[in-house]
Amino acid sequence: MKILVTGFNPFGKEPINPAIEAVKLLPESINNAHIVKLEIPTEFNKCVAVVKKEVELQQPDYVINIGQAGGRAAITPERVAINLDDGRIPDNAGYQPHNQTIQEAGPTAYFTQLPLQAMVDAIHQVGLPAEISNTAGTYVCNHIFYQMQYLREHEFPQIKAGFIHIPFLPAQVINRFNAPSLSLADSVRGLTAALRAITEADN
Amino acid sequence: MKILVTGFNPFGKEPINPAIEAVKLLPESINNAHIVKLEIPTEFNKCVAVVKKEVELQQPDYVINIGQAGGRAAITPERVAINLDDGRIPDNAGYQPHNQTIQEAGPTAYFTQLPLQAMVDAIHQVGLPAEISNTAGTYVCNHIFYQMQYLREHEFPQIKAGFIHIPFLPAQVINRFNAPSLSLADSVRGLTAALRAITEADN
Amino acid sequence: MKILVTGFNPFGKEPINPAIEAVKLLPESINNAHIVKLEIPTEFNKCVAVVKKEVELQQPDYVINIGQAGGRAAITPERVAINLDDGRIPDNAGYQPHNQTIQEAGPTAYFTQLPLQAMVDAIHQVGLPAEISNTAGTYVCNHIFYQMQYLREHEFPQIKAGFIHIPFLPAQVINRFNAPSLSLADSVRGLTAALRAITEADN
Amino acid sequence: MKILVTGFNPFGKEPINPAIEAVKLLPESINNAHIVKLEIPTEFNKCVAVVKKEVELQQPDYVINIGQAGGRAAITPERVAINLDDGRIPDNAGYQPHNQTIQEAGPTAYFTQLPLQAMVDAIHQVGLPAEISNTAGTYVCNHIFYQMQYLREHEFPQIKAGFIHIPFLPAQVINRFNAPSLSLADSVRGLTAALRAITEADN
Repeated sequence: MKILVTGFNPFGKEPINPAIEAVKLLPESINNAHIVKLEIPTEFNKCVAVVKKEVELQQPDYVINIGQAGGRAAITPERVAINLDDGRIPDNAGYQPHNQTIQEAGPTAYFTQLPLQAMVDAIHQVGLPAEISNTAGTYVCNHIFYQMQYLREHEFPQIKAGFIHIPFLPAQVINRFNAPSLSLADSVRGLTAALRAITEADN
Repeated sequence: MKILVTGFNPFGKEPINPAIEAVKLLPESINNAHIVKLEIPTEFNKCVAVVKKEVELQQPDYVINIGQAGGRAAITPERVAINLDDGRIPDNAGYQPHNQTIQEAGPTAYFTQLPLQAMVDAIHQVGLPAEISNTAGTYVCNHIFYQMQYLREHEFPQIKAGFIHIPFLPAQVINRFNAPSLSLADSVRGLTAALRAITEADN
Repeated sequence: MKILVTGFNPFGKEPINPAIEAVKLLPESINNAHIVKLEIPTEFNKCVAVVKKEVELQQPDYVINIGQAGGRAAITPERVAINLDDGRIPDNAGYQPHNQTIQEAGPTAYFTQLPLQAMVDAIHQVGLPAEISNTAGTYVCNHIFYQMQYLREHEFPQIKAGFIHIPFLPAQVINRFNAPSLSLADSVRGLTAALRAITEADN
Repeated sequence: MKILVTGFNPFGKEPINPAIEAVKLLPESINNAHIVKLEIPTEFNKCVAVVKKEVELQQPDYVINIGQAGGRAAITPERVAINLDDGRIPDNAGYQPHNQTIQEAGPTAYFTQLPLQAMVDAIHQVGLPAEISNTAGTYVCNHIFYQMQYLREHEFPQIKAGFIHIPFLPAQVINRFNAPSLSLADSVRGLTAALRAITEADN
């Protein structure tokens, strides 16, 4: 089995994005699954092509996109991607969509193919907080999540795909009063547990 | 230099207390300061005697009590201890004081002798969130903090003393929706940085 | 124009539900729109029939369901209803679905027909906090929201429908440490402003 | 009986301060107590003189200072004033003290003379959230609270004094994501209940 795991690069005023940092530190294989890692740009109009190219090259069984969810205290696998782009801030290319449909011919939303509850349980079992989330927002995270589902429907039906949000790193909350965080080591440990749950649910 | 660092044992419904767990993992020495570690009971009427006995035995230069502050996202050195016991829940001996003066002849409050801002800065420098706190509550944490100050005033004038609260561990917030936590490794790292700041401020 | 506004009755351990209390206090008409009010049961298997019957009787132009969102500080018009029932607690009939599809033949999600941004702006203009929400959860609130959209698609295409969550009342947070609330008068004022925005957007 | 109730004027970037707005709307008398109202400047070096002058003029039995506590969801009578000024932002005169003792000859802290638990209970009985707070911070609120206690000790021993923090108004949190607020009417109602409890506890 092969799992492509992507992480966004830093955006907004943050010098670091825990998503790509955690992805870099994932093991090369989990159970018998090979983990392929990919950094992707925090850009609405560029991130999809980068992932798509890697999917064509690697032919993975799963595509899991990882992103930062500032303000959340837990690792949160996402349930649903919606057909809407709406940014509070511009992306790394300066593009800031307002209330735009992602795919004119696409459905309102897609549910993930990932085993959400098994992933949450697995993260709990390694002693870390996790919750199923019912919204991936309307920024680049939801965008890549939706587009991967759309690509799955139209081009890569053999792939299962999903999105996991992780909290800020402790260093990112130093000047954010009482904002929650999770260490990089714990995000890596939690993501590894979630990926293991995916490999086990696949059997 | 010698620093006595205490950590409370578990209380309430928690099977673990990050305070004593973090204390156990502190290095044996920081700069040239020897770190003496002591587990103390979460009991209003017992914790003071346990610390006092160790102070007499060890003759430390500093006494730092560490406790858990559930709900806080940062490591918080405490500024002030107040002359009041008031428990929301009973302590480990089943004792639950309501609005009781700790020392009839004692002052309303004591300020710590610790270099709070230097400690906060040092924790920030290792990439972890920290804030000076203006309240240690009215439970056993404030009690030991106040009593150590009282003992300092009356019996051990050569000692400097203070209190540091640390957040829940990640495993403690699994069933607490969006509650913040800090890993044990990070609490240890943050406390170590704070203790180093104390040794440096002492010169 | 006619707007049917529904409010859920109390559920869980709460003796009161701000949703139905606020609905009761709405004006009888806003601009030229007649406001029809309806209390509905917090029951997955009963609430839809109650609303449907009233829709058939009243032939409204809009159906707006109001529900309580404990923990939120703002009035939150909902963007999207998803095809999933999943309850953390049983409903008022003791029914607690786990991860169940609402309509086997239904789409993954529906977007509301309500003018969300205009509603949020209108609530702000009367001095109250409001945010567009991207999740109505997976409990009875999302259920009625989804089912109204499904009914709209299949039986009442002339209707526009949506959902608005309102915060706890102040009396409900007395024993919930630092939980946000909104007064009944303010929820009524905010909902009235949102309904006015709907009537204006309709022209 | 006569109760002097003060409210601070707006500070920071806020165009309004709920403290003085609520004070203005208090009844003229509660039980048989006459309520004297006073607006005071959010300035470390000016607010005390303004209150002192009014105390000399009015000869009140109680002095209650009211201030805004952004981020709190409940009305919070304060337990203790500490001998320290430390501002995160400058006051309205541009003065920003850092870690300064308020009264060189003053004690570390004073406890209020107000019946805190009775006040909290009374606020609860009118259906509003309230908590005893153990910190009034280190800004102008704590400053006036401490200085009134100091004046009481040295010049006006017949007076009982204290401080009550109230939350942001709803209009103040429109652009603060999920920040709690309390309506002006509810703050007035809660403060009135607290003042009534004071008049009753005095008998």
